[in-house]
Amino acid sequence: MTQQTIRVDLGPRGYDVRVGAGLLAQLGPSLSAMKGVRQAVIITDSRVASIHAAAAVQSVRSAGLDAPVLVFPAGEEHKNLSTFGRLMDSLFALAPAIDRDSLIVALGGGVCGDLAGFVAATALRGLRWVQCPTTLLADVDASVGGKTSVDHPAGKNLIGAFHQPSAVLVDVLALGTLPARQISNGLAECVKHALIADAAGLEFLEAHAADLLAAQPELMARLIAHDVAIKAAVVSADERESGVRSHLNFGHTIGHAIEITVGLDRILHGEAVSLGMLAACRLARWRGLIGEDLVERVARLLAGLNLPVRWGGLDAQAIETAMLHDKKVRSGRIRFILPTGAGRVDVFEDIPAPLVRQAIESLAG
Amino acid sequence: MTQQTIRVDLGPRGYDVRVGAGLLAQLGPSLSAMKGVRQAVIITDSRVASIHAAAAVQSVRSAGLDAPVLVFPAGEEHKNLSTFGRLMDSLFALAPAIDRDSLIVALGGGVCGDLAGFVAATALRGLRWVQCPTTLLADVDASVGGKTSVDHPAGKNLIGAFHQPSAVLVDVLALGTLPARQISNGLAECVKHALIADAAGLEFLEAHAADLLAAQPELMARLIAHDVAIKAAVVSADERESGVRSHLNFGHTIGHAIEITVGLDRILHGEAVSLGMLAACRLARWRGLIGEDLVERVARLLAGLNLPVRWGGLDAQAIETAMLHDKKVRSGRIRFILPTGAGRVDVFEDIPAPLVRQAIESLAG
Repeated sequence: MTQQTIRVDLGPRGYDVRVGAGLLAQLGPSLSAMKGVRQAVIITDSRVASIHAAAAVQSVRSAGLDAPVLVFPAGEEHKNLSTFGRLMDSLFALAPAIDRDSLIVALGGGVCGDLAGFVAATALRGLRWVQCPTTLLADVDASVGGKTSVDHPAGKNLIGAFHQPSAVLVDVLALGTLPARQISNGLAECVKHALIADAAGLEFLEAHAADLLAAQPELMARLIAHDVAIKAAVVSADERESGVRSHLNFGHTIGHAIEITVGLDRILHGEAVSLGMLAACRLARWRGLIGEDLVERVARLLAGLNLPVRWGGLDAQAIETAMLHDKKVRSGRIRFILPTGAGRVDVFEDIPAPLVRQAIESLAG
Repeated sequence: MTQQTIRVDLGPRGYDVRVGAGLLAQLGPSLSAMKGVRQAVIITDSRVASIHAAAAVQSVRSAGLDAPVLVFPAGEEHKNLSTFGRLMDSLFALAPAIDRDSLIVALGGGVCGDLAGFVAATALRGLRWVQCPTTLLADVDASVGGKTSVDHPAGKNLIGAFHQPSAVLVDVLALGTLPARQISNGLAECVKHALIADAAGLEFLEAHAADLLAAQPELMARLIAHDVAIKAAVVSADERESGVRSHLNFGHTIGHAIEITVGLDRILHGEAVSLGMLAACRLARWRGLIGEDLVERVARLLAGLNLPVRWGGLDAQAIETAMLHDKKVRSGRIRFILPTGAGRVDVFEDIPAPLVRQAIESLAG
């Protein structure tokens, strides 16, 4: 399989995302090629550690670098300040002590990237870091943009920083160890990318749904490289999320609120985004931006990718309250990203509350 | 008294430091002049709150902005992740909820600037913030450079971020409420600025020592504006501390280690820096970089500003260990900033350990 490299163009903070098979086993050489790296601190969760840590450590050590491993308990409920503090305790207890020639490797899914990235952003006021995502969701979403964070009881990702990695290595072989539900979870973000910027991508997803669900490596590499390029283009144009980058929040306005309300232990991020995208499509339909055919097409695609198009027991009132607490809300106005066609979205701030309520209620299972 | 404005030139992250009498009472108009600010969350410590918070709140409210106040316990021992977490809890519990039109005001000394600045750097991945320093040390040091942080048991300022403020308001009237020891504490950094970049400033400090210790407002404003300009020039040239900005660490390599070893409850930052500068001067003398006359001149000036030139019971071994844990140490090599003349310093990485030990022992009281 050929390896593909996508440049995320952010001037002095720019970096390469490499997509291919077996990249984890090449971690060591990749790091030793960077200037002045002496030590790679691998941060990973308890689930990923047992599958991938040994290979990563061996590769780093073979390259002549020190490779301590810090493990935190798997699960989004651990992506908080308390786990962050314990990782810092472990980091500063390392011998030899970390310094500015130390680099952080985030080995795992989105939670690991967010958490280890936030450690990298703030340890010694900023260390270099390399992302090695191991889930499809992290491959196509968290691997581009430099967003790092932990959750707070008041909401997801409320505490964090923008801190671009030095490199991202996407090893598609890691997807072979993922449960089917996690593949669908990642495909939700691919549907998002297609709907906001890539009508042809929508057809690709429709045509290859079965092979994608089977995580066929060649196809996965093609999909991931394509999606990373889409996200890289958006992020390059708007690093700090003041303009066009907000399009990436399509499906997330309602989706985030559903995620919090239903509970991170019951619904996956991509599943909540699936529901959020469908609700956004319906808002767009009622607003006259798109036809019923596109709404039905999206619902059919999501269902075909084993993503939910309805959910039992949704609490519409609680979801609305959670939406008002989203950190992207400015002065109490909720911004919706709505489709204006296949592969096109725009920002709307004037969607009436009763319509939003109706869209949420349309998702009830 | 005329108000002076010093520009910290950092391109899109640049900002103004304003120095004058009565600026705290003008906080509200200063904030409402900024684009899209709806709410100013004032973060301050329990000591400063009782002196300055009421005036700040009144000014902000008079300008039509919401002005909640979050208070943390005074003292450097509270500049840690635990206080940070509690401030975040309070911040996210505010009603109406904070959003990207909320701004943080850091009202207090260096601890408050570091801590509230780190809250601003990481809440919602970065809010705007305004620094209102209330100590001479914070006026001339922490007010420029965008360094924010909390301490960790393993060392000072180990967790933090670079996050430039939108503006800094230095009200020299606030110095009238400071104890004499705190004035000397700030003057140590002024000596540092003079020694690294400003031979004429050294003469100014020598000529006006008595009036400076009395915190005479006109003189203070002149000194602060002058020192802010020196630091702004250094920081503008090197925002992320990869080159010339390291000169600002003059006196801090040994000073930081003394501060940790003696204990933050017993020695003030400027006092430790006073000792550290004198030790660095002696290293420079032994290395043949400067003459004994400059060492004696510095010792005389420090003593004249009521700063320590020796300290009882210093543990040289513990200080050396602490130095090796400093976050600025790269691959185990300690970098010393040593004077090469009055108003000139350079970086040295090859100072033999026995010489360092001798310099520390020369400070024993």
